[in-house]
Amino acid sequence: MSAPNCRGMRTGVWLIGSRGSVAATSIVGALAVRAGLAEPLGCVTELPALRGAALPALSDLVFGGHDVATIRLAKKVESLASAGVLPMPLVAAIGDELYAAEKEMRPAPSGRTQAETAARAGADMAEFRDRHALDHVVVVNVSTTEPPAVPHPAQADIDALRIALRGHDPVLPASSLYAYAAFTAGMSYVDFTPSTGARLPALVQLATQTASPYAGHDGKTGETLLKSVLAPMFAMRHLRVRSWSGINLLGGGDGANLAASAPNAAKTASKQRVLRETLGYEPEGRTRIDYVPEIGDFKTAWDLVTFNGFLGTAMRLEFTWHGCDSALAAPLVLDLARLTAAAHAAGRVGPLAPLAFFFKDPLGSVGHSLAAQWTDLCEFAAGLSGQAADVVGA
Amino acid sequence: MSAPNCRGMRTGVWLIGSRGSVAATSIVGALAVRAGLAEPLGCVTELPALRGAALPALSDLVFGGHDVATIRLAKKVESLASAGVLPMPLVAAIGDELYAAEKEMRPAPSGRTQAETAARAGADMAEFRDRHALDHVVVVNVSTTEPPAVPHPAQADIDALRIALRGHDPVLPASSLYAYAAFTAGMSYVDFTPSTGARLPALVQLATQTASPYAGHDGKTGETLLKSVLAPMFAMRHLRVRSWSGINLLGGGDGANLAASAPNAAKTASKQRVLRETLGYEPEGRTRIDYVPEIGDFKTAWDLVTFNGFLGTAMRLEFTWHGCDSALAAPLVLDLARLTAAAHAAGRVGPLAPLAFFFKDPLGSVGHSLAAQWTDLCEFAAGLSGQAADVVGA
Amino acid sequence: MSAPNCRGMRTGVWLIGSRGSVAATSIVGALAVRAGLAEPLGCVTELPALRGAALPALSDLVFGGHDVATIRLAKKVESLASAGVLPMPLVAAIGDELYAAEKEMRPAPSGRTQAETAARAGADMAEFRDRHALDHVVVVNVSTTEPPAVPHPAQADIDALRIALRGHDPVLPASSLYAYAAFTAGMSYVDFTPSTGARLPALVQLATQTASPYAGHDGKTGETLLKSVLAPMFAMRHLRVRSWSGINLLGGGDGANLAASAPNAAKTASKQRVLRETLGYEPEGRTRIDYVPEIGDFKTAWDLVTFNGFLGTAMRLEFTWHGCDSALAAPLVLDLARLTAAAHAAGRVGPLAPLAFFFKDPLGSVGHSLAAQWTDLCEFAAGLSGQAADVVGA
Amino acid sequence: MSAPNCRGMRTGVWLIGSRGSVAATSIVGALAVRAGLAEPLGCVTELPALRGAALPALSDLVFGGHDVATIRLAKKVESLASAGVLPMPLVAAIGDELYAAEKEMRPAPSGRTQAETAARAGADMAEFRDRHALDHVVVVNVSTTEPPAVPHPAQADIDALRIALRGHDPVLPASSLYAYAAFTAGMSYVDFTPSTGARLPALVQLATQTASPYAGHDGKTGETLLKSVLAPMFAMRHLRVRSWSGINLLGGGDGANLAASAPNAAKTASKQRVLRETLGYEPEGRTRIDYVPEIGDFKTAWDLVTFNGFLGTAMRLEFTWHGCDSALAAPLVLDLARLTAAAHAAGRVGPLAPLAFFFKDPLGSVGHSLAAQWTDLCEFAAGLSGQAADVVGA
Repeated sequence: MSAPNCRGMRTGVWLIGSRGSVAATSIVGALAVRAGLAEPLGCVTELPALRGAALPALSDLVFGGHDVATIRLAKKVESLASAGVLPMPLVAAIGDELYAAEKEMRPAPSGRTQAETAARAGADMAEFRDRHALDHVVVVNVSTTEPPAVPHPAQADIDALRIALRGHDPVLPASSLYAYAAFTAGMSYVDFTPSTGARLPALVQLATQTASPYAGHDGKTGETLLKSVLAPMFAMRHLRVRSWSGINLLGGGDGANLAASAPNAAKTASKQRVLRETLGYEPEGRTRIDYVPEIGDFKTAWDLVTFNGFLGTAMRLEFTWHGCDSALAAPLVLDLARLTAAAHAAGRVGPLAPLAFFFKDPLGSVGHSLAAQWTDLCEFAAGLSGQAADVVGA
Repeated sequence: MSAPNCRGMRTGVWLIGSRGSVAATSIVGALAVRAGLAEPLGCVTELPALRGAALPALSDLVFGGHDVATIRLAKKVESLASAGVLPMPLVAAIGDELYAAEKEMRPAPSGRTQAETAARAGADMAEFRDRHALDHVVVVNVSTTEPPAVPHPAQADIDALRIALRGHDPVLPASSLYAYAAFTAGMSYVDFTPSTGARLPALVQLATQTASPYAGHDGKTGETLLKSVLAPMFAMRHLRVRSWSGINLLGGGDGANLAASAPNAAKTASKQRVLRETLGYEPEGRTRIDYVPEIGDFKTAWDLVTFNGFLGTAMRLEFTWHGCDSALAAPLVLDLARLTAAAHAAGRVGPLAPLAFFFKDPLGSVGHSLAAQWTDLCEFAAGLSGQAADVVGA
Repeated sequence: MSAPNCRGMRTGVWLIGSRGSVAATSIVGALAVRAGLAEPLGCVTELPALRGAALPALSDLVFGGHDVATIRLAKKVESLASAGVLPMPLVAAIGDELYAAEKEMRPAPSGRTQAETAARAGADMAEFRDRHALDHVVVVNVSTTEPPAVPHPAQADIDALRIALRGHDPVLPASSLYAYAAFTAGMSYVDFTPSTGARLPALVQLATQTASPYAGHDGKTGETLLKSVLAPMFAMRHLRVRSWSGINLLGGGDGANLAASAPNAAKTASKQRVLRETLGYEPEGRTRIDYVPEIGDFKTAWDLVTFNGFLGTAMRLEFTWHGCDSALAAPLVLDLARLTAAAHAAGRVGPLAPLAFFFKDPLGSVGHSLAAQWTDLCEFAAGLSGQAADVVGA
Repeated sequence: MSAPNCRGMRTGVWLIGSRGSVAATSIVGALAVRAGLAEPLGCVTELPALRGAALPALSDLVFGGHDVATIRLAKKVESLASAGVLPMPLVAAIGDELYAAEKEMRPAPSGRTQAETAARAGADMAEFRDRHALDHVVVVNVSTTEPPAVPHPAQADIDALRIALRGHDPVLPASSLYAYAAFTAGMSYVDFTPSTGARLPALVQLATQTASPYAGHDGKTGETLLKSVLAPMFAMRHLRVRSWSGINLLGGGDGANLAASAPNAAKTASKQRVLRETLGYEPEGRTRIDYVPEIGDFKTAWDLVTFNGFLGTAMRLEFTWHGCDSALAAPLVLDLARLTAAAHAAGRVGPLAPLAFFFKDPLGSVGHSLAAQWTDLCEFAAGLSGQAADVVGA
């Protein structure tokens, strides 16, 4: 395959949940970095190892999106700045461009049937693409985590699905309906949340039909990021993990939702997968999520790991992670948009398993070691531009 | 090179510091595991990924050593059992074999010149080899950390060294004198401590002349093990580490020594190397070592890492590691003896850089990412038996 | 009131849950301390400030009790020794006396009506008293935490209660039925658990009629002990606590039960009371209890406190408590038995509010500052012997 | 003694180190609170228990001071606001009053002899008093910690001291010279640092001669505050503290100085005193101070406490304190100025031992339990106004 040059490829980033903290931080950050006001810290695609890849530049990205919320973007950004998540002076400097992004946001559509809702969503996305003469659009779901999907027979087959969507009963959860709209419009789809998204047989078929790549699930931004390096450490040293317990205290937008039992179950299941699959057994313990509004966007996660070493000696590791979820997630949203757009340009279709580096609950049957995922990512990026991988920096 | 079959190769493990905690735990553990009384937890060479390698078996190992201390091995083992480091019932079960090991221990030799001291040390080692008809002996330094070596011109050249050793002034620190004796006797040498050991030009020449392989330095058993997975995580995610500070509280034999300023400096320098070389810059902060006798062999290390992410957002990670140094070190001593003996059988000479996985301050210019070191180790082990590497388990 | 001399007053300690970890540790400890095999660490009544009080001596205590479990005491003690909760050599030394305690244990009685059950329980207690010619018996509930009690109209009045107990429907939870039996037999009652115990109007009337003192609820052994000194610190320094969140990981006998939702609710409510009443407002956050069998009797509790200081500056405190619940609770059980027996001898009747020092959820409207509770305790103990309080040691 | 009414008593607060973080935060905070822009969080004298005491109001305070540094106060305040120590909007609101405070600051005087230096310092203070028609001036040392004082025979007697100060050799450290100047001018003196200050026999004599009260030493703002509640907890529960080790990471102005060995020794000695005197024995371990510039004013302190309970069971407590030293110290500076001025008005002379609540290393032989110190403070404050103490709120 000849190497496409994606530099200069105008790329739309259509955010589902475009007025939330992650979306707002992604937009502000992209604007600030390309204006030279901030370094691209946290952006993996700006590391030496990946900088050579044929990706659209940060300045090639154009933002828009859907949201059920109606808060003005500037207002949201202001509240993030007050909370210390965004630097006040930087926010002041990009006011005009923020206003431009505001104009690209649309209310979450709602039709009489899900087919109609999807059609309206797709129309918004297509108009966005046409208005800006974009080469490609990547739809990225950064909205609030859904409860686990209610099964429906039509989820198994794209033809059955098309028919069922025209009825009055809901067939797809919102995240999947957006994936349906994106694929139908020939766009790519990234699910940064644990929601169902493209993970239904009917949607997998559709992505193949429309030659759309997709990636997911659930951005790896905190505790699971640590698990993805610590669990391999225990495995490589032949130490037996007896229990791994944790608690996440968070007060941001998603906190109230995640502390509710159903989405919490979805989230904590995806958090334990990395342990089970890395260690080859499932240690005792579980991860709790508690909503503490006063903590705001700076999440505190505490984990206790008990393990046995030589002759059964009992030992323990404790860690506290005090991270800002939005600041950790936002640069990865930009990375994923750039990588997925380049994958589309390079003719990749369907699940992008080599993007497992970014996710708690990656697509496909891949390893969970961050180092192995990094190697995969570097090779994938090099492959997009026809280069040999040059794994650097870790 | 044809693949040697090392199973059944009788291998001597000559421990410098043979009556200390690490040595005693290594011996007890090897005896217990081969008697089927304990699982080989903590032994990397017993993981599926390495189990196929052509290494001498645990039951092929025979133990002996030098020590300046005179405490009986059984007494030392008893005190470790009282402190919870060794399981009491297991100790009772291996009493007879422990007595056999006791008979192989010799007082640290002391001649009128260093040449004479080295000759006596070599004679002890050679008699051990001959008495047990060993195929090979690996000398492993697990004694107390020395202060940094005093430079001497004769350290630069093996011929000059041989002459200088016959004089009355000391030329080599003890760790290097044992390496000299080992190489002279055609044995391998492993330095599990931060002491100088084989790291002198004259000794590098000698190892080449006698076709001896060697490995080191400073077994990676706690805080640095964590650094070797956490620092790459920060690097791979493009997060900027601003400071990394830590304190080690330990009460075991080495604690009193390490808390003294000179060996402490040696140790903490080797602890920071992994950060500097992994991150490409040196964050603020340092690592302290404090001696707290009551804490005993269960070391507590606390680290605070402050870092910046997207748009400069300040975040932090704290961890507490509560590990038993002897229990973490002992299985690695067994791994290193087996791997080094097999390397010798396979004709490897000089520094064994692919054993960096085991060390804080590895030989050669190698990466510090534990995952990359693991890949190197698997390839090295596979190469010893002429197999293709099959990296598994992490 | 003239000062009774309680030294030499033979005192029965009748344990509800007598084969559990706390009971076994209390018995072993009392035997070991009076045999001079261990110091009375953790026993508050052995501090200089209280040593002068007119209390029965440790050697005046005789143990017996009820339990639904049938495990032999020696077996239970053995398992605690294996888990590191009790020192192995000490256990070996008191074997005979343990056997004597075993003979004083009775299965939890079960009659056709609760009146019959209570009568049998009372008969067991009375026989124990008579068999050993005891001056007084203190019944101490150390059994598993019950779910919150089901309300019943007869709980409000002792006469109605006596009638209702003769019916076939349950009227009282087990903890209250034992309190009923104890008071009826003229004995004292201590509730070391969060269960209902004597906290029902009918039982308060009964205690007055039979001149029985009682104490409770819920021994303060870990996280709440810390709250009782840290919350006053924040209050005295005019720092505003914004959130106080925590998690308890425990694997001991009570863990499985407490992690279940109903008793957990009882327990965590009693844990928050100290904050609300000390600070004068209720900060955000809650305390979770998770059952992790591998952690065993050594509970790990982690708490995060966020607070505001001068000009609203946001600050935080985190702590990890790694304590053995049985070892923390057992000496307090001995303290409470001695103090309650002395209170009875001094003619005290009804709730013993000055024993708040020992409890998470104390009787009466008392302060939660540990220091203030300590002063109350010292005055109470001095009052029992007619001395002026001499608050020392804190 | 009749109760003076201090409300409305115009009180000067002359800060030694008036351009440092603590001084600037104290001034900004006092201005903000009296302008109704902020609550008096952290001010102990604003708690209900002390609000009734006859103290000068916050609005009665006038600020001035000496400093060797020349940074403008507004500049210092701006840098504290950038670092998140002071709220930006509040700083903007009090610009004018800050300018007024700036005009009251004088460069640290330097004469040919220490007598001359002291005279100039006293003249600055007296002019400040006269210019504002102040009823009284309290001199508060918040400057950088000095190394331990060099002994000089003249420190033992005020007459000898007066003569020696006229010579060319230094006799007193700076903190003591300011105390000398303050006392000579009939002013009170508070030492918020571990420096020598008034702790010399000659100065004690002088304070008596001029009827000046004084207080100190070393404001209790972080780790020692915690020790003053946790150590009594261990003592009251008869738990034996085996080791107490800690590390303080701080990057603020005082950090660089404290990490140097001499002042560090002064500071850490004062930190251990509370343990030794509360527990009655000195546990193993020590407290380290490390300077990490990037950490700034938000200090992180980590402590590990190991302790033994019933039957010797080994347990542990760890805590991390993440506090802003300036924000913790500044309100106490205001409290101390108000209390000391009221003490002077009430005729108190010499060391004010009941202010131990505020200090790591209090004057006199007092207890270190924060709760007991709180009671002393309440009684002292009530005594100043002739009221009975009404200990509330803790």
